[in-house]
Amino acid sequence: MSSEIPDIVIGRLPIYLRELTLLAQEGQEVTSSHELGKRLGISSAQIRKDLSWFGPFGKQGTGYQINYLQEQLKKILQVDHEWPVAVVGAGDLGRALARYGGFAHRGFRIACIFDNDPGKIGSYVGNLQVLGVEKIKEEIAAHHIQIAMIAVPASHAQEVADTLVEAGVRAILNYAPIILSVPDGVRVQYIDPAAHLQHMTYYLR
Amino acid sequence: MSSEIPDIVIGRLPIYLRELTLLAQEGQEVTSSHELGKRLGISSAQIRKDLSWFGPFGKQGTGYQINYLQEQLKKILQVDHEWPVAVVGAGDLGRALARYGGFAHRGFRIACIFDNDPGKIGSYVGNLQVLGVEKIKEEIAAHHIQIAMIAVPASHAQEVADTLVEAGVRAILNYAPIILSVPDGVRVQYIDPAAHLQHMTYYLR
Repeated sequence: MSSEIPDIVIGRLPIYLRELTLLAQEGQEVTSSHELGKRLGISSAQIRKDLSWFGPFGKQGTGYQINYLQEQLKKILQVDHEWPVAVVGAGDLGRALARYGGFAHRGFRIACIFDNDPGKIGSYVGNLQVLGVEKIKEEIAAHHIQIAMIAVPASHAQEVADTLVEAGVRAILNYAPIILSVPDGVRVQYIDPAAHLQHMTYYLR
Repeated sequence: MSSEIPDIVIGRLPIYLRELTLLAQEGQEVTSSHELGKRLGISSAQIRKDLSWFGPFGKQGTGYQINYLQEQLKKILQVDHEWPVAVVGAGDLGRALARYGGFAHRGFRIACIFDNDPGKIGSYVGNLQVLGVEKIKEEIAAHHIQIAMIAVPASHAQEVADTLVEAGVRAILNYAPIILSVPDGVRVQYIDPAAHLQHMTYYLR
């Protein structure tokens, strides 16, 4: 795989994979770039171009074998196995993430959850006991965790990110409404519901 | 404003606005497309091109007045006033959304929260009392609500979306891991943390 594949293409692969999984659940075995495009609001040409970076997945006129394309996308995205994930913050949001049912079949398992509040440390979220933030380094090393989600207030997020990176985390999903500063080689993605809402209010004329 | 402005451009405006707000909080009064681009990981040419759809906001060589550009972006995105927002689902996630501090200064106020669980109806989330889902229509009409967030299990999300749309909602932020079917004229955005994680695992080689 070329390292020159645009990041925006990589970002669409999980969306294709999600839609293929839905189609499979609906009992379908074959799909086309036209069908996928219609369901996702993306042009079929864009979908064919994106997938062509990774190999020929379908034949002209016969479409894509859904199971096969799913497996290939999982391999490309490296979610054909399960990654342990750390959650920092055991407030409403952190607890919701730790209990969220949508990770299990998509390559992720919440392995530990941390908080700095003595009132929360020791309590359970599902099967997981909330650990103090001073345990982050040893837990992350022990479980070989490379991925973390930050669900703490904005004022603590950078400090938490620094600790996670020191501990060996290389991918952070940040729910706190601030931009994190991280060294090269560490990736950050942001969940910003207000930005999504603002994207839609533009159209509410 | 032209209706031909690409949606992907509109989607970047909230990101620019967020970064301008941060810069202003840091005490800065002027910025440039280079500085913004560096902070956001977007090319300065892209930023100038995106903003040029809406007017000339800066002068060659003098950069952008942060306050002025913030005000203009707020007007363009229509968040120079506050929108009431409904939350459906009062589980961990719905409660986290209802209490989230990041909406207030970005144009949104959570106006009501609904659930179908008799054990939750009547309880309080901050100052808001959880209402039964059968109240959705009357509440949304009474508060002239056009925006809603769905934080219910996937199995209920489409039904909830149908009710919201019937009640007059035109913009939905969906946290349930399913694609919603909505009529033309209604916009949906998705929060899908697993897709963000998969985007990053691609690079964990």
